Amino acid sequence: MDATAVKQCFLELQQTIVVRLAAADGRAFRRDEWTRPQGGGGITQLIEEGGVFERAGVNFSHVHGASLPPSASAARPELAGCSFQALGVSLVLHPRNPYIPTVHMNVRCLVAEKPGASPVWWFGGGMDLTPYYPFAEDARHFHRACRDALEPFGADCYSRYKKWCDDYFYLKHRAEPRGVGGIFFDDLNEPDFATCFALVQRVGERFLPAYVPILERRQRMVYGERERAFQAYRRGRYVEFNLVYDRGTLFGLQSGGRTESILMSLPPRVEWRYDWKPEPGSPEEKLYTDFLVPKNWAD
Amino acid sequence: MDATAVKQCFLELQQTIVVRLAAADGRAFRRDEWTRPQGGGGITQLIEEGGVFERAGVNFSHVHGASLPPSASAARPELAGCSFQALGVSLVLHPRNPYIPTVHMNVRCLVAEKPGASPVWWFGGGMDLTPYYPFAEDARHFHRACRDALEPFGADCYSRYKKWCDDYFYLKHRAEPRGVGGIFFDDLNEPDFATCFALVQRVGERFLPAYVPILERRQRMVYGERERAFQAYRRGRYVEFNLVYDRGTLFGLQSGGRTESILMSLPPRVEWRYDWKPEPGSPEEKLYTDFLVPKNWAD
Repeated sequence: MDATAVKQCFLELQQTIVVRLAAADGRAFRRDEWTRPQGGGGITQLIEEGGVFERAGVNFSHVHGASLPPSASAARPELAGCSFQALGVSLVLHPRNPYIPTVHMNVRCLVAEKPGASPVWWFGGGMDLTPYYPFAEDARHFHRACRDALEPFGADCYSRYKKWCDDYFYLKHRAEPRGVGGIFFDDLNEPDFATCFALVQRVGERFLPAYVPILERRQRMVYGERERAFQAYRRGRYVEFNLVYDRGTLFGLQSGGRTESILMSLPPRVEWRYDWKPEPGSPEEKLYTDFLVPKNWAD
Repeated sequence: MDATAVKQCFLELQQTIVVRLAAADGRAFRRDEWTRPQGGGGITQLIEEGGVFERAGVNFSHVHGASLPPSASAARPELAGCSFQALGVSLVLHPRNPYIPTVHMNVRCLVAEKPGASPVWWFGGGMDLTPYYPFAEDARHFHRACRDALEPFGADCYSRYKKWCDDYFYLKHRAEPRGVGGIFFDDLNEPDFATCFALVQRVGERFLPAYVPILERRQRMVYGERERAFQAYRRGRYVEFNLVYDRGTLFGLQSGGRTESILMSLPPRVEWRYDWKPEPGSPEEKLYTDFLVPKNWAD
């Protein structure tokens, strides 16, 4: 278990992603280094009102503390009260053009320790795609890139993590998935550290090839008020998911994380409308009927 | 304990409020009656894109179920698993003009029952004010109306419920109160049913005189893009509070409530901006320095 190597790898991943996204956007990322009073810190990089991204946040953080927050120890009561360190890269991109999907990617490593016991470590991560005006071609491309990323780690790895993603990014109060999914995994600590680290590393590396081609395909599509309004409405679901359900957000807020970095995942402009439903036969309805349903996109 | 009388009273309260607010707005409320598959139902009344209110929702609900949701039994483990009924009126008004504050009011009655034991009942409720461009005169008026509402129920009632409100409507992750407060109470079941019911009834009745004069004072004030942008930004705090902390919202979502009615409390248009701070000496800064701090507004 080598947290230094993980840190180095995550810092490089953040930088690689930021450089490529800045080139796509035409604007540089703002860069904020911060420290956390209770221990550790991070580097927040973001674009607001960019050429392509209305808001794009790419966070690196390495925090430590005397006691694992409840959101992290809920499934592992034996770790309650352990000291911990958490390392991660987390990004959410909110493009302005409603034809470009929102995307989220995260890789993380947690280490919990208590006196007289060997450290417990685990990895988690994943990426998922949230389109507004969706294209089957994009969903397929994204899922195939996810499958390729996991290919060296077992024949059923992608299908398990794809299902985990569908289960995790689900808004129970709406009976609706957040988007077309992708992959999600947590509590990964088998067969050994090196293999788990390699998996997470590969997921991180495959983010850009999974997303950038979609962005490039859609960024010149013409949109108007109608598409922006539907995007703003659908972004409301993103807010609902992140604030009501998301473990990473709750972990961050509970562990005294840096609020501005944690909530950078929230969309820049959002609208709520009462009991709104898409018109039958409209492109907006297609999102619900053809995309917000479980599908094997990679096939 | 007479749930029928409470229901009658709450239905009348909803109607009185809706009639007065419709007159203020110049538009009628839309009215949706709904039933809940697991038992009970409600009446949702709202205005969207009205003359004064960008969104105004006034809900009545009477729901029952086989098992009290965790958000309601957390503080009363002896009631876990009890069947329950919950009656309430809940409103949130989001005016368009940023000089008119957002306001929330709620009265509720819960009854929990299990075989072989007498029913346990309690009341809760309150109202609180969330200004964007605040006026001390408005905060004072609102708090004095709250104090008057509670005046027959003991000399220290207002000050206890005022503090409870300050404690409850607090965003820990921002270290910031939601607004200038008001009153909040829960688990009210002493000295007897009649007194508690009378208190809740009076709180409900005093909502209109607490809020409408503020609305009337501010509704013709001229505002522009700057004020709307700050309002949209501050509304983000309202979303954060309601989705991360609010007991009523969690109760509703956990008990299989009607999502569209529960989330009607969310503002219609919201913006998040990274690490935004008001300019020193600006009217926006005044909100933080002079109003988002604990004060004895009624004095």
